[in-house]
Amino acid sequence: MNPPIIVLVRPQLGENIGKAARAMLNFGLTEMRIVAPRDGWPNPSAGPAAAGADIVLDRAKVYETTAEAVADCEHIYATTVRKRGVTKPVVGPDNAARLMHTKAGRHAVLFGREASGLATEDVSLARHILTVPINPEFGSLNLAQAVILTAYEWSRIARKTGADSDLVQPTAEEELLPPAPQAELDGLVDQFEEMLRPRGYFLPEARADATRQTLRSVLTKPGWNHLEVRTFRGILRTLGRERRD
Amino acid sequence: MNPPIIVLVRPQLGENIGKAARAMLNFGLTEMRIVAPRDGWPNPSAGPAAAGADIVLDRAKVYETTAEAVADCEHIYATTVRKRGVTKPVVGPDNAARLMHTKAGRHAVLFGREASGLATEDVSLARHILTVPINPEFGSLNLAQAVILTAYEWSRIARKTGADSDLVQPTAEEELLPPAPQAELDGLVDQFEEMLRPRGYFLPEARADATRQTLRSVLTKPGWNHLEVRTFRGILRTLGRERRD
Repeated sequence: MNPPIIVLVRPQLGENIGKAARAMLNFGLTEMRIVAPRDGWPNPSAGPAAAGADIVLDRAKVYETTAEAVADCEHIYATTVRKRGVTKPVVGPDNAARLMHTKAGRHAVLFGREASGLATEDVSLARHILTVPINPEFGSLNLAQAVILTAYEWSRIARKTGADSDLVQPTAEEELLPPAPQAELDGLVDQFEEMLRPRGYFLPEARADATRQTLRSVLTKPGWNHLEVRTFRGILRTLGRERRD
Repeated sequence: MNPPIIVLVRPQLGENIGKAARAMLNFGLTEMRIVAPRDGWPNPSAGPAAAGADIVLDRAKVYETTAEAVADCEHIYATTVRKRGVTKPVVGPDNAARLMHTKAGRHAVLFGREASGLATEDVSLARHILTVPINPEFGSLNLAQAVILTAYEWSRIARKTGADSDLVQPTAEEELLPPAPQAELDGLVDQFEEMLRPRGYFLPEARADATRQTLRSVLTKPGWNHLEVRTFRGILRTLGRERRD
């Protein structure tokens, strides 16, 4: 799976370190590295903000410099809001995630301090710039949000299996009951017809076939499963009863 | 582009409404609807948390019920952390975004209150369940995070619409009429209920709500267009008549 390492460079607030940990663990990332945290480490405000993602904080390693933090990593991404010239390839979270799943070696993503982002020397360590494409008139992503989008994409691409995952299809459709067999649907259509005919629904006779077609196509569209067909037949039986009031 | 409408159902904290607005605007979403906000509207804590996304808050509309909030929408998604049974197709933010870009009609995404999420009756309004696939051992997404992942995916897929390979080719279904607005579907459901109640369909009373949910789910599944809904209402009127034989 090759999960990326999330590197927080000179973070200011312990609360934001906790929120980043929470964002990571939601999508299965557990390895955090912290470079020169302003308020030291451990930080008492990190735990509460992590909302239970303590495993990430407990395992977090602290380094003095960014270079030391990524010394054992083969692929380094520097997250920036703006593209720094054209000196390095710029990727979004989705393409970064694809690289993580296709390129062997350890991948590390650098996130800068809340106020000022990454310093130029941090960016110089990276082979890729990771930029979340945001609204040019309103760019306001905080640290935890940048982390969660990166973690989400890594997890999303990890679950993808080939091209068909790009098709529009409910991810859990397999879990749904299959449509009822045609015989059950016919039974429902017949029941409708038996109830509708004596009430004149298929008159005038000249239109009867077209009306029957419409009825069938409306009832065919849902692809009801056999439980749903059974529910509908119960509804029809009920409608056939006399009112009780 | 067909941007989705973000519907916050009974949100508790104004701060979270503001954070949701900020999350939306980062990815170009501007239409927010708020159902029965606990602390009323406008809410003084929303503005500061929006961090400049005032345009979203200023345009936000408030409704008393979820049904009213989505009455003019053709495609409704209910965000839940867990899958509610197997009655509706479940999509992730990526496939939901693809549906938004391929299906004609207005798309609305329902987000529940911070503490408890969406109520069953809110979910019953939706044709799709939107679930962010998260770490089964640690699921801790807050409201703004769920909103930002939805907005991010809509924006990501929007930027890809040039690349046909990434988007599903519209099928014949897309050329057909879009599903009827929620208000028309509600009319059909009401008509069913009016006819079924006096015939004892909702008895025993203890099961009435569950029975009503089942009825709505079965009727929501087809995504009938307004002609089909009209056909069905004609069928029901007919079934209400006396037999002629």
